[in-house]
Amino acid sequence: MIRVFKSGEVARADILYRGESGSTQAVEDAVADILADVKKNGDAAVLRYCEKFDGVKLAGLRVAQADIDAAYEAADPEFIRTLTMAAGNIEAFHKRQIRRNFVINDTPGVVLGQKVTPIERVGLYVPGGTASYPSSVLMNAIPARLAGVSEIIMVTPPAKDGSVAPAILTAARVAGVTAIYKMGGAQAVAALAYGTESVPKVDKIVGPGNIFVAAAKRRVYGIVDIDMIAGPSEILVLADAAANPAYVAADLLSQAEHDRLATAVLVCDSEALAGAVSAELERQIPLLPRADIARASIDNNGKIIIARDMAEGVDIANEIAPEHLEVCVDDPFSLLNSIRNAGSIFLGKNVPEALGDYFAGPNHTLPTLGTARFSSPLSVDDFVKKSSFIYYTKEALGAVQERIVDFAEREGLSAHARSVSIRFEDGQ
Amino acid sequence: MIRVFKSGEVARADILYRGESGSTQAVEDAVADILADVKKNGDAAVLRYCEKFDGVKLAGLRVAQADIDAAYEAADPEFIRTLTMAAGNIEAFHKRQIRRNFVINDTPGVVLGQKVTPIERVGLYVPGGTASYPSSVLMNAIPARLAGVSEIIMVTPPAKDGSVAPAILTAARVAGVTAIYKMGGAQAVAALAYGTESVPKVDKIVGPGNIFVAAAKRRVYGIVDIDMIAGPSEILVLADAAANPAYVAADLLSQAEHDRLATAVLVCDSEALAGAVSAELERQIPLLPRADIARASIDNNGKIIIARDMAEGVDIANEIAPEHLEVCVDDPFSLLNSIRNAGSIFLGKNVPEALGDYFAGPNHTLPTLGTARFSSPLSVDDFVKKSSFIYYTKEALGAVQERIVDFAEREGLSAHARSVSIRFEDGQ
Repeated sequence: MIRVFKSGEVARADILYRGESGSTQAVEDAVADILADVKKNGDAAVLRYCEKFDGVKLAGLRVAQADIDAAYEAADPEFIRTLTMAAGNIEAFHKRQIRRNFVINDTPGVVLGQKVTPIERVGLYVPGGTASYPSSVLMNAIPARLAGVSEIIMVTPPAKDGSVAPAILTAARVAGVTAIYKMGGAQAVAALAYGTESVPKVDKIVGPGNIFVAAAKRRVYGIVDIDMIAGPSEILVLADAAANPAYVAADLLSQAEHDRLATAVLVCDSEALAGAVSAELERQIPLLPRADIARASIDNNGKIIIARDMAEGVDIANEIAPEHLEVCVDDPFSLLNSIRNAGSIFLGKNVPEALGDYFAGPNHTLPTLGTARFSSPLSVDDFVKKSSFIYYTKEALGAVQERIVDFAEREGLSAHARSVSIRFEDGQ
Repeated sequence: MIRVFKSGEVARADILYRGESGSTQAVEDAVADILADVKKNGDAAVLRYCEKFDGVKLAGLRVAQADIDAAYEAADPEFIRTLTMAAGNIEAFHKRQIRRNFVINDTPGVVLGQKVTPIERVGLYVPGGTASYPSSVLMNAIPARLAGVSEIIMVTPPAKDGSVAPAILTAARVAGVTAIYKMGGAQAVAALAYGTESVPKVDKIVGPGNIFVAAAKRRVYGIVDIDMIAGPSEILVLADAAANPAYVAADLLSQAEHDRLATAVLVCDSEALAGAVSAELERQIPLLPRADIARASIDNNGKIIIARDMAEGVDIANEIAPEHLEVCVDDPFSLLNSIRNAGSIFLGKNVPEALGDYFAGPNHTLPTLGTARFSSPLSVDDFVKKSSFIYYTKEALGAVQERIVDFAEREGLSAHARSVSIRFEDGQ
């Protein structure tokens, strides 16, 4: 049974609680060894770990273009149609995020600006097995492509027969991935971060993964950039008394089925709704193929918080700063301005999170564990970097040289001052 | 003497080499203890560390508004004028970075968008002693203010008499800092990350600091956001044969005087210029008040790389991905497009880095250690986060429900599929 609290009677720690996950010293040590080994021994080390962890002896790491094309050609046309429509929506939304250079030239002899440059090579991690999601391929690769990344290098652990799931290969082709390598775990992260004989070194690694992948990403951060270390998935449904308890329960369960550590929370202003959703959860859980996972998530991490009113409900949502926030009220846009902390916001009673997970267009890689207070959904911004530029003529510099010298001298940095004044000295 | 290499004869590791810095286990252990202590004991712990490390027993941590105003009133009017002009330029540049919400409403019944929300509370670390720079106060606080951050909380270690440098207080008032606390080191980072009786918990911590501050920031990352862990400062001057060796040497030294670990590099296409700059460095170093620091930086980390031509010079600059890049050629805009990796780019022969450090407007907090391959200057973007939002009517959801169900079922996530289909079932 899901736990039910009244807002005035619940500790702050309980409000903020998420399912706990995390690395261990054993994981950290194993990952450190794998990184060092791949850095030193390259492909040979990756192939060795592939045999050890994935149970397959590969001849080479790269997936042939012919295999990608064969998977695409053999795919169910309905799946291609679904993928293509989703990709079109993702592209349309993310195109709006593309940033342009700007230039300021308000003063004679002075040009200032900011230029936006794509990150050159990006690695995209795609998990294997049951967590191998074609939707993640689209959500990670499409923003990278729109940003202008020239090489999008996908890595994914092979099955025991050395193959990669056809749905993943098909999604990779639809999304515009430029190369695919059969490798997973910390060894794949290492190969991307350091480069090997066959795998080019990348500048950034994105995509979800298990604790080994997360630990490896954290360790190579600085050598390369990483997207984020995602925690277990979370949903917060903010609903008023008129919400449909069956819909609310179904939406909570769509998150709970992901993972025993997933967190599903309902915040509402109605004891009656709380009771009805609780009953609906009990009715619906047994109907699910992944009932055991959903049950563990709901019982261990799920909660219903009954707020005094919807205004307090919004405050609680902002404090929790959920990854996914559903606003199940009749006039959801009336609350949009007051929502400050949430990864993605689903507005209205007919906007289940799954619509955003797969199809609507906004990214499904979102900040977890309350980091929506300061972090953003994955976007085109994550695949570019900015550089500022400054041009002054000698005359323009001369007009302000005293100010720069004044500032530098007050900070005790004479060579800074001198680098300006030397340009106006006789004989220099 | 600075070392001189020909591009064809230098190892990649030598090209990429920077002065080495880094944490030690002793630093890490000390910082972990301080964080735990402040988390548990709040103000009492901070005051205790203040007595221990800063040598002053404070009655309270907060700087009174009257003290800030008194510093401002007593400041040299020339300094106020310099600060105000610099602040105006910084504001004008960073205003161009402000992002707006967007909304897409191309399909009936479908509204998608992205909203931009300021991070609520930000902590700004300002070092004490000789590295206490009013310019850093401006460069960090002004973008935060423009982003709409409601509380900008500055922390800085007090002098032995319990005071804060008047120049820092004056810059804080000019920049729009909302509160100032007298504390430094890991204890200040802890107080900002966890909150204490007198210090509000923030969402993000920015600003430079020593290895204790850097280690503390790295450890609280995730609980709060951080800006970046800056390495020692770097400059790369890309110059053609016609560059003035005295100017180039002065610019290299403006970086070298910062820190023994600072790195100054000249890349040019002329042996003659290489020789002349080398000689100029020897001539100018003894003239500097900070000659010993500049000498150590130039001799240990400095280098001149002679490229075959300017095109190869640009490639080398992109590979090094410097924090500051000066392009000392007659037509610098001709090379702008080919520069892919640099924090800030100084275009032309009369644009010393100091112009950007203090005055021109772009930020001086820039990616070091080659991270310009994937990182950007500090900007207004660092003080906001984005949230996406999705609204569909029931009719619009109905029109695409089969696609979402198809995708979810192929990923084996039936509860995702069900959260959509339940809305179209009879009796629900």
